[in-house]
Amino acid sequence: MKVLPKALNILVSHFSRLPGIGKKTAQRLAFFILKSDMEDIKPFSKALVDVKTRIIFCDVCGIMTEESPCSICDDYNRDDQIICIVEEPQDIFSFEKVDTYKGKYHVLGGVLSPLDGIGPDDLNLESLYKRIKKGMEVILAMNPSIEGDTTSLYLSNILENMDVKVTRLARGLPVGSNLEYMDELTLTRAIEGRTKV
Amino acid sequence: MKVLPKALNILVSHFSRLPGIGKKTAQRLAFFILKSDMEDIKPFSKALVDVKTRIIFCDVCGIMTEESPCSICDDYNRDDQIICIVEEPQDIFSFEKVDTYKGKYHVLGGVLSPLDGIGPDDLNLESLYKRIKKGMEVILAMNPSIEGDTTSLYLSNILENMDVKVTRLARGLPVGSNLEYMDELTLTRAIEGRTKV
Repeated sequence: MKVLPKALNILVSHFSRLPGIGKKTAQRLAFFILKSDMEDIKPFSKALVDVKTRIIFCDVCGIMTEESPCSICDDYNRDDQIICIVEEPQDIFSFEKVDTYKGKYHVLGGVLSPLDGIGPDDLNLESLYKRIKKGMEVILAMNPSIEGDTTSLYLSNILENMDVKVTRLARGLPVGSNLEYMDELTLTRAIEGRTKV
Repeated sequence: MKVLPKALNILVSHFSRLPGIGKKTAQRLAFFILKSDMEDIKPFSKALVDVKTRIIFCDVCGIMTEESPCSICDDYNRDDQIICIVEEPQDIFSFEKVDTYKGKYHVLGGVLSPLDGIGPDDLNLESLYKRIKKGMEVILAMNPSIEGDTTSLYLSNILENMDVKVTRLARGLPVGSNLEYMDELTLTRAIEGRTKV
């Protein structure tokens, strides 16, 4: 008997499919489940399916939400003259945590990546163009990666013709970092983007 | 909107209850679930409950199994004159992986730990005593910890009166280790337990 009981083995294989969970950790999690009370496991099991059935994507901005339009798009206290464009829905939660941005958002659902065959048609762009009105500000908040920068460049070219102010997040030294260990590109961006004291 | 959608939040809280999964990892897992296909999630959700409903503990040895007695207790090719006593069911799978032990097992379901209020009555001992016959060998395979050693001592005192051969796993240097980095206690045990070449 070299293998675990079948039911346990199935659970281990499901856990090990999760990102960052190896075989050993998956086994530990499965043993933990086995030892837990059924009253704790049933809601967990239900929560997994609930996430798929109850969460939809906002028709306006593309964030995950339980009702569309989402509470951000529906919030009249937020400035609808600024749209912050992000790659993925979870990026919005990072912004919301810091609580300094009071505009609206738009989720692209990815970035341009010719190597992976992802072109402009695969991104949530049509609904973005519809939201854009003359004179508003659009913040490009893609990740500081090659694909993110490519997407920023592509979008800024298109948005320039739509008579809007296009900005992007500042590049430079992260707070709490150490110059000694900073990579060259970040340091180059920090010098290029230096501001008057 | 500082919080995630409710359904997602519930799933995050379930994930973060798992051992070794922090808030951040739990969020990453929940986002992964959200992006997965429903066809993958439904079996996962089912597997969680299945583990609790379909897996029982063997009446004889206490290992987890889908039918009792388990395939080890039911295996007539295995030597029933040797019983290896382990703390937890998963310890058996470690032994079975190496495939050198061909006797039977018995799961205590814990170790003596007066501080945590765990005494002999809380361990799966009655069924062990019933299995023991004169002249058999009992291997004490508790973890090399204070609680494990206490339990070994307690059991060896009782078993000695039952006319069985009591052995325990060898203590010493793990294979691939380095003397330079070995802790003092392990080294002491290695010297004490030195064998003739």
